[in-house]
Amino acid sequence: MVVTEMSASNENGYHSGYATSIDITRMFRNMSNAKLFAVDIGGSLAKVAYMSEVQHARKRLKSFCSEDSDKERTIGNPIYEIKDQQECGLRLHFIKFETKYVETCVDFIQQNLLEKTDNVVKVMKATGGGAHKYKDMLTTKLGVRVDKEDEMQCLIRGCNFVLSTLPDEVFQFCRDEDSQYVFRHLESNEIFPYLLVNIGSGVSIIQVNSKDHYQRVGGTSMGGGTFWGLGSLLTKAKGFDELLELATQGQHKNVDVLVKDIYGGPYTGSGLPADLTASSFGKAVRSCNDKQEDGHKFAECDIAKSLLQMISNDIAQIASLYARLSGIKKIFFSGYFIRGIPATMHTLTYGINYWSKDAQQALFLRHEGYLGAIGAFLKGAEEYGVSPLQFKTWEENYAASTGLPTATSKEKTLDGKPMNQQYGGLQCDVLELDQISQDLVPFPLLSSPGEYQPDTDDLTVDSEARKYWLDCFGGSALDKVVERAIASQPNLPDAKDRAEKFRAKYQDHLNVLYDKPFSYGSLTVRSLLDTREQCLDEFQFPDLYAEVKQQENEDALRLFSQRVQDLDNLPHDDQRQESLVRGILAGNVFDWGAMEVAELMEKKLLGFSSAMDKLQKRPWLIDDLDEWINNTQNKVYKCALVFVDNSGADIILGVFPFVRYLLLCGTKVILAANSYPALNDVMFSELNILLEQLTGLCPDIR
Amino acid sequence: MVVTEMSASNENGYHSGYATSIDITRMFRNMSNAKLFAVDIGGSLAKVAYMSEVQHARKRLKSFCSEDSDKERTIGNPIYEIKDQQECGLRLHFIKFETKYVETCVDFIQQNLLEKTDNVVKVMKATGGGAHKYKDMLTTKLGVRVDKEDEMQCLIRGCNFVLSTLPDEVFQFCRDEDSQYVFRHLESNEIFPYLLVNIGSGVSIIQVNSKDHYQRVGGTSMGGGTFWGLGSLLTKAKGFDELLELATQGQHKNVDVLVKDIYGGPYTGSGLPADLTASSFGKAVRSCNDKQEDGHKFAECDIAKSLLQMISNDIAQIASLYARLSGIKKIFFSGYFIRGIPATMHTLTYGINYWSKDAQQALFLRHEGYLGAIGAFLKGAEEYGVSPLQFKTWEENYAASTGLPTATSKEKTLDGKPMNQQYGGLQCDVLELDQISQDLVPFPLLSSPGEYQPDTDDLTVDSEARKYWLDCFGGSALDKVVERAIASQPNLPDAKDRAEKFRAKYQDHLNVLYDKPFSYGSLTVRSLLDTREQCLDEFQFPDLYAEVKQQENEDALRLFSQRVQDLDNLPHDDQRQESLVRGILAGNVFDWGAMEVAELMEKKLLGFSSAMDKLQKRPWLIDDLDEWINNTQNKVYKCALVFVDNSGADIILGVFPFVRYLLLCGTKVILAANSYPALNDVMFSELNILLEQLTGLCPDIR
Repeated sequence: MVVTEMSASNENGYHSGYATSIDITRMFRNMSNAKLFAVDIGGSLAKVAYMSEVQHARKRLKSFCSEDSDKERTIGNPIYEIKDQQECGLRLHFIKFETKYVETCVDFIQQNLLEKTDNVVKVMKATGGGAHKYKDMLTTKLGVRVDKEDEMQCLIRGCNFVLSTLPDEVFQFCRDEDSQYVFRHLESNEIFPYLLVNIGSGVSIIQVNSKDHYQRVGGTSMGGGTFWGLGSLLTKAKGFDELLELATQGQHKNVDVLVKDIYGGPYTGSGLPADLTASSFGKAVRSCNDKQEDGHKFAECDIAKSLLQMISNDIAQIASLYARLSGIKKIFFSGYFIRGIPATMHTLTYGINYWSKDAQQALFLRHEGYLGAIGAFLKGAEEYGVSPLQFKTWEENYAASTGLPTATSKEKTLDGKPMNQQYGGLQCDVLELDQISQDLVPFPLLSSPGEYQPDTDDLTVDSEARKYWLDCFGGSALDKVVERAIASQPNLPDAKDRAEKFRAKYQDHLNVLYDKPFSYGSLTVRSLLDTREQCLDEFQFPDLYAEVKQQENEDALRLFSQRVQDLDNLPHDDQRQESLVRGILAGNVFDWGAMEVAELMEKKLLGFSSAMDKLQKRPWLIDDLDEWINNTQNKVYKCALVFVDNSGADIILGVFPFVRYLLLCGTKVILAANSYPALNDVMFSELNILLEQLTGLCPDIR
Repeated sequence: MVVTEMSASNENGYHSGYATSIDITRMFRNMSNAKLFAVDIGGSLAKVAYMSEVQHARKRLKSFCSEDSDKERTIGNPIYEIKDQQECGLRLHFIKFETKYVETCVDFIQQNLLEKTDNVVKVMKATGGGAHKYKDMLTTKLGVRVDKEDEMQCLIRGCNFVLSTLPDEVFQFCRDEDSQYVFRHLESNEIFPYLLVNIGSGVSIIQVNSKDHYQRVGGTSMGGGTFWGLGSLLTKAKGFDELLELATQGQHKNVDVLVKDIYGGPYTGSGLPADLTASSFGKAVRSCNDKQEDGHKFAECDIAKSLLQMISNDIAQIASLYARLSGIKKIFFSGYFIRGIPATMHTLTYGINYWSKDAQQALFLRHEGYLGAIGAFLKGAEEYGVSPLQFKTWEENYAASTGLPTATSKEKTLDGKPMNQQYGGLQCDVLELDQISQDLVPFPLLSSPGEYQPDTDDLTVDSEARKYWLDCFGGSALDKVVERAIASQPNLPDAKDRAEKFRAKYQDHLNVLYDKPFSYGSLTVRSLLDTREQCLDEFQFPDLYAEVKQQENEDALRLFSQRVQDLDNLPHDDQRQESLVRGILAGNVFDWGAMEVAELMEKKLLGFSSAMDKLQKRPWLIDDLDEWINNTQNKVYKCALVFVDNSGADIILGVFPFVRYLLLCGTKVILAANSYPALNDVMFSELNILLEQLTGLCPDIR
């Protein structure tokens, strides 16, 4: 469905060059099986929340040995079969757009869903200031009962949900650091208490002491509406974003009186620095003697900048004072005024640091715009008994969700397209969360899980590494993934089409990350891989490497007994130990330096034994071999936890011989593997089948 | 001296009809013997402080019995002589005017003083933001060394001085009370700690813990400069006062989004009332679809009002939060932004009450505009060793000082003249303090001196009583004072001219009080009398009633022995006691109901005995006579303190026979009298002479 009504404002102006329609169908995905709705309608932005059922294509492995296999394994045949199947999952959709489009969107929902299905819950939660204004329209058009919910309560509920559910939700903004976005992980016991400063048209300051206990402690009428309202009176800017854009070009010192304008330098008596603003707009005063026209001597951009700074700084000071009064250190900012805008976040951060003498932290949320909608939706789900929506069973769909921040109108992607064109010119943000089957918990042996950083490189900070890895994942490497995807579904005629869509989607995603590496939280190799899997899933390409891994497992299994025998034949135990470690390293070649090795593997030039030969001479970069050998002479390890990596040679010829050795020493061994596909990583389901096979081949392992 | 340069701005506009010159000579009085200068130059207003020596005309009484009398008293001659003499006193002058006139004023000072005399201290203290800018000009023109002083330090020093020195300095502003100005007396132990919120171009918040210990705890860049600057950009108002005037005509709800605009009523969940401002200027937002011209749909007065309210409320909230942090209840506001403007004081008071839930008080100072200048002057006097400027030895010269608040441009007095025309159109305020010889201390037997209220009627509150008493002091009663003044100086040819000037001055003062009864603190009969004496002193009319009192004392003395004898002849002691009390009441007839009695006295129709006859029948309104008679039968009072009132019959025939009775009972008696003249009140010096005479006539009193 394409709506053209919304392009009315795009003639002759700032927005020229924008697409003149929005693709509502893409915004409201999976509408045909949407279940439960909630809305949060603010003065500027509206958010719609709903839940849908989605079908994921999955490849399930079935061992021929297992009872539910319908075939007997015959010699020469694969050890397991790969079955394509569809699995059903739940998805939460949150869509944010300008409030003026509410009616259009409601019409779409009504036409596409509510007329056709009886599956929908005929009650919906509505929150936000606009809930009042639009309640009748919602009731009439959708034919549902609308329950108004307290705005603050929904906000806090939503905030607690994202804080406890989404990784890298929280960040600090440090304008002058290499990475301006410093993501902070908060363990569940580190979340409370906090102060939530919600900056909409006005400002509310809420002290949150626990999941269920919060209080509005204060607020101010100087908020986003004040910036926008005064800015509208003082400049020609049309709309909030133009005003912000204007502000980023301005110099506040042309309008404000600084301390040095009064004292010629700092005011040392009270420790006020020379560049501190002494009086906002103080240079604009006009006395009786001045001519009327003097007002025009100030540039609009300087006025906008001064306005932004005045309001942000005021909010920061008030927030900091409330935090001091309650002894709170964490101050979260949310609301329309924020929207990930660097200038705003910087002034707020600067203000909190200044007023608290660095004792408090200004913290921002990647999904602050959705808090009220999330809260209203969760409340509805709970009250209407729709689904057991437990915390921590959801993960962000990076492929479908828009990143941080929303691009302001003029921002362009690397290839020159306006950032917000993806929904046809409508500024629209989307967050989708997919239900995951397991609840993730921190590994219990970590001493401080909150500080554990599983990634070796933080690509958000290291720009050189970032460039290298983004290049790795894009370009010709992406071509190969697309080829692989097509190859993985030889029997599906639309595979090529879907694979191309995947390519475009993922390349778009990479382009966003070149430009704004912080868009989806900390950028790491892991997050690039995860997102690629999510993109592939989006276009129904599950586990691209399933068949490759299957083949490699077959190949390696054939060499297993020989490898074990070779090891057993080594005269000295320390030789055996060295060979075991070399085996693990050789199996892991894929991670040596992704592009080059990938090429070798692609060309089948790299077998296990040649990989063994290609290993560097000792000492290796990190080389604990001697220490291990030494240790095993004196003591027996009780238990070993092995995190396994690749399928094929790595697991079968590298890891399993090592595991066998440990078992023979009397050590208990736990193997830890991924639940979901990631490249050629061995998965939990696969590992189980391989273990069956190996226990058959090698009684020591059984 | 008349300066015409300053009239430049008065053409074609708001200020038309104003005098076009200022009388600088009247502003800078006593310049010919000025001694020590200090300046406080702010961005908007400048203040000059100096000290002068003034000659006061005094009437001194000399007894013919005393050793320094040059005449022997002969029978039939007066018992004392009245000598006219000039006495020297110190006066502190503080003058406040717009900063743009600084140079003109400095030129005046240079021409009229510094060229002619060597008596002036050639060093001056300068404070305020402008001290930096004008330092060179001051040095060059005045040929003095300029010592820059810390602004905050001067401010606090000045604040502590006015708090501990000037009565009725502090007030609360209660817009909805009968008397909007509620004056608060603070005892010296009730002053600290306090928060001083100084609102100039920007805002400084200073915590003052004691006379010498203070700290700037915070501030904000949103202050008077912001109101004026944004107001200049948003309206056509010329100058701060026009902008304020505009604000008083506006409705902020036309520009601001109220809670009810969003929620249709109060936001009960968080206890926000329907009329609370949710977003300042929130109604002025313009989005892409709006036409450019929409900006003009807002009235300038509504914009000005919203601006004033936004800034005042913000300052109040921040001040309240700082006060909460330090547990302080008293928040004083000072600075250019305040200047006694009701709308500003109301919003600040409302804000403090709202944010502190009435736990803190917003307090204002009648002389907040002079604090920095006072502080700088005191510092100079101390450092340069000019004079022992001790606290509490100064009193406000109500006759010369301008009242509270400064009139805004459009305000008129009752007779239609612009309020601020008194200095020829220049908005100028003056504070003058006269040195007094004694240090005043609270009466030590008062249980809580801070709460002691010496006046029976508060004319600031009681509008009916106010009208009555202002009428009493003006009109024909004032005519009689003028006549009396002329009569008191039969040998001075300019007495008539000075008396007319006195009349005009005092009538002006009364007119101000009809209009703004709060102008000089609590309005009482006492303050009206005090001010009249100060006005008379101003025009060299000391103790108008000296000769009248002299005559009445003579007359009464002649009747004293007879009166004592009549009392002694009464058969019963309780009859005597009743007669003693009747005598005191009869002597006090002047206070029965001022105008009617004054008339009788003027016509000499009322003698002591006829006054005794005219007394009401018992019981009187307050009648403790029986209790007193009863008490004296059982016990002897150790000591009696008698506050004496009128000269003549009252003291001699009423009080002294009563005192004699007490002495004969064995009671010690202390007499308390005024130091300075007030109508026909007996003064301390006069009482001493009368005692001399009476001890001669009556051995019981000796």
